[in-house]
Amino acid sequence: MKINGRHHRTIWTRPDGWSVEIIDQTLLPHRFETIVLSTLEEAARAIVTMQVRGAPLIGATAAYGVALAMRSDPSDASLEHAVALLAKQRPTAVNLRWALDQMRAALVVSAPGQRADVAYARASQICDDDVETCRRIGVNGLALIRDIAANKKAGERVNILTHCNAGWLACVDWGTATAPIYMAHDAGIPVHVWVDETRPRNQGAFLTAYELGAHGVPHTVIVDNAGGHYMQQGAVDLVIVGTDRVTRNGDVANKIGTYLKALAADDTGVPFHVALPHSTIDWTLEAGYDIPIEERSSDEVLKIQGRLPNGVVVVTEIAAPGSPAANPAFDVTPARLVTGFITERGRCTATTDGLLSLYPERRTDPSSSTLIA
Amino acid sequence: MKINGRHHRTIWTRPDGWSVEIIDQTLLPHRFETIVLSTLEEAARAIVTMQVRGAPLIGATAAYGVALAMRSDPSDASLEHAVALLAKQRPTAVNLRWALDQMRAALVVSAPGQRADVAYARASQICDDDVETCRRIGVNGLALIRDIAANKKAGERVNILTHCNAGWLACVDWGTATAPIYMAHDAGIPVHVWVDETRPRNQGAFLTAYELGAHGVPHTVIVDNAGGHYMQQGAVDLVIVGTDRVTRNGDVANKIGTYLKALAADDTGVPFHVALPHSTIDWTLEAGYDIPIEERSSDEVLKIQGRLPNGVVVVTEIAAPGSPAANPAFDVTPARLVTGFITERGRCTATTDGLLSLYPERRTDPSSSTLIA
Repeated sequence: MKINGRHHRTIWTRPDGWSVEIIDQTLLPHRFETIVLSTLEEAARAIVTMQVRGAPLIGATAAYGVALAMRSDPSDASLEHAVALLAKQRPTAVNLRWALDQMRAALVVSAPGQRADVAYARASQICDDDVETCRRIGVNGLALIRDIAANKKAGERVNILTHCNAGWLACVDWGTATAPIYMAHDAGIPVHVWVDETRPRNQGAFLTAYELGAHGVPHTVIVDNAGGHYMQQGAVDLVIVGTDRVTRNGDVANKIGTYLKALAADDTGVPFHVALPHSTIDWTLEAGYDIPIEERSSDEVLKIQGRLPNGVVVVTEIAAPGSPAANPAFDVTPARLVTGFITERGRCTATTDGLLSLYPERRTDPSSSTLIA
Repeated sequence: MKINGRHHRTIWTRPDGWSVEIIDQTLLPHRFETIVLSTLEEAARAIVTMQVRGAPLIGATAAYGVALAMRSDPSDASLEHAVALLAKQRPTAVNLRWALDQMRAALVVSAPGQRADVAYARASQICDDDVETCRRIGVNGLALIRDIAANKKAGERVNILTHCNAGWLACVDWGTATAPIYMAHDAGIPVHVWVDETRPRNQGAFLTAYELGAHGVPHTVIVDNAGGHYMQQGAVDLVIVGTDRVTRNGDVANKIGTYLKALAADDTGVPFHVALPHSTIDWTLEAGYDIPIEERSSDEVLKIQGRLPNGVVVVTEIAAPGSPAANPAFDVTPARLVTGFITERGRCTATTDGLLSLYPERRTDPSSSTLIA
């Protein structure tokens, strides 16, 4: 999407044809800077320091990390070293392992002299596939926004609430939850986004607000407490969120607080949609209560990053000294509160039957990897 | 309640018998300091700068402000000046006007030579009455906690979630929502409080966590997003919140985000109670949708106060530069989501009949001031 009027992806190869450039997301929203990755080690560092974050972007960066390794040394030992090094940077990231498996599979059957070319081509394909998946989610979700806009008076905005960042900064382009929003905006439909700040890590206020603003989409940052009130007031037409994992029955694991917004949407009759690529569906889990919830550092609750008036970014402690904090990273929204799913194959209800209607091949093969190509 | 083992109220007269001391709440939770008020002007300044905050404490401070004025000049002109000056410091604070009306009524019928004594006596009475009201709320709410504790295994904690600060720092002592918690703790019942940080002004992380910690009550700060998840997990036995206004039908206006917690409590079967003194019931409003919701400065969302590692307290900007924010201060929780009210007269359902069962005098007199003595 656009930043200052110029189209960007989150990762791209430079004009030299081999070095890789990324946006340093640790500096957002305070500063926009890009970084050049010239070695495997620099790619690994970008992943572990979260200069890149978001499952698809981590996978894409790892793929290019392998390509950089093959360029400098296309031996079998170099390939195995690259895969092992990259895999351990974010041990729980499913997309990271999937991308590395893809790269390794393509490279082990190639002659060393071909490997650099094969690796760059496969990495590029992984990026393009992600963009295409998100674009299709956008097209399928755009229909929802069009329908709402059609029932508005001319010029009236469609108000969409989102939680956390399921935007293009987490992917290669478009994003998942944001793809329909960008498409509606680009199509001239007047959209306005309520951006939950999304404590504790503030991905909404930091990243979603940044990327919407940079692309020119009207939006308003609100505290996570405010969304229910705006739904009561009729100021929200639609909720679209992303997800970290959807189980067979349609339960949705997503950033902590998603459940509360789903409850409010249900109570006030606001449609609540979840945007996801097929890779997020965990066909092996029957229901959401089987999903383990990550407990993260209490420092994320007790401390916050912000800009001083002089532009310097500092971390301050915000709670009463000595008070402990707890920090569950995700919650599970029961399928009964979800109006529907928006995937790259279309829309469906948040039920096993709904999901199988879009992915009929899973009727007979529920146990295979969720990350098919 | 206690700070470092010593009992405090939020306002008291000093050993000299006339000067007044308060806790400077603008420094909490970072520093505990008290301030001496020796003049009317100092009392007015404490109110407008929010060194004192919370409706009952604002009223008590105003009452002592009048007493300080009478000590230096007990004339009619001085009385009228004091009342007018104090009233304009927080124009929308109902308790402030009520306390000033009480003081004025007691003083206009007194000879100037008596007025200082009358004023100190009436101000002291206003404080003691508030303490007694909160104490009774505590006794009535304690029964709820005892019942839950009785069904726990020996040593198992009663987990109570609260939102914002309806604690003793907002009152003279005990607090409203916190009174049952302090009483249970002091009675040896093992309680643990989930403290919603309560964005945007963080009264939970700043004040509730501070006062619970200072009194020794086990507690954990959580982001506002997390409470629903903990209710799903069975980690919350009871929710107790305060309120800014309750309408005749039992609808509850309280700090933004209260509605979301009430929805989650309803969805998970967790009892959701609202603690309030009679003065909070607005008998003239039929339902919550009649309550105007204050929209506050977007700076409260976009900026936050915190401590640097060197102890210096600074304000930083936390959202994407240029993103606008909206900041509704309250929401309305429909009566259907409220398990019950805890008042100084007992407990009741969140219905007109429930409220009238505790305040039968309101059957025939719905329009009079809600702030009876």
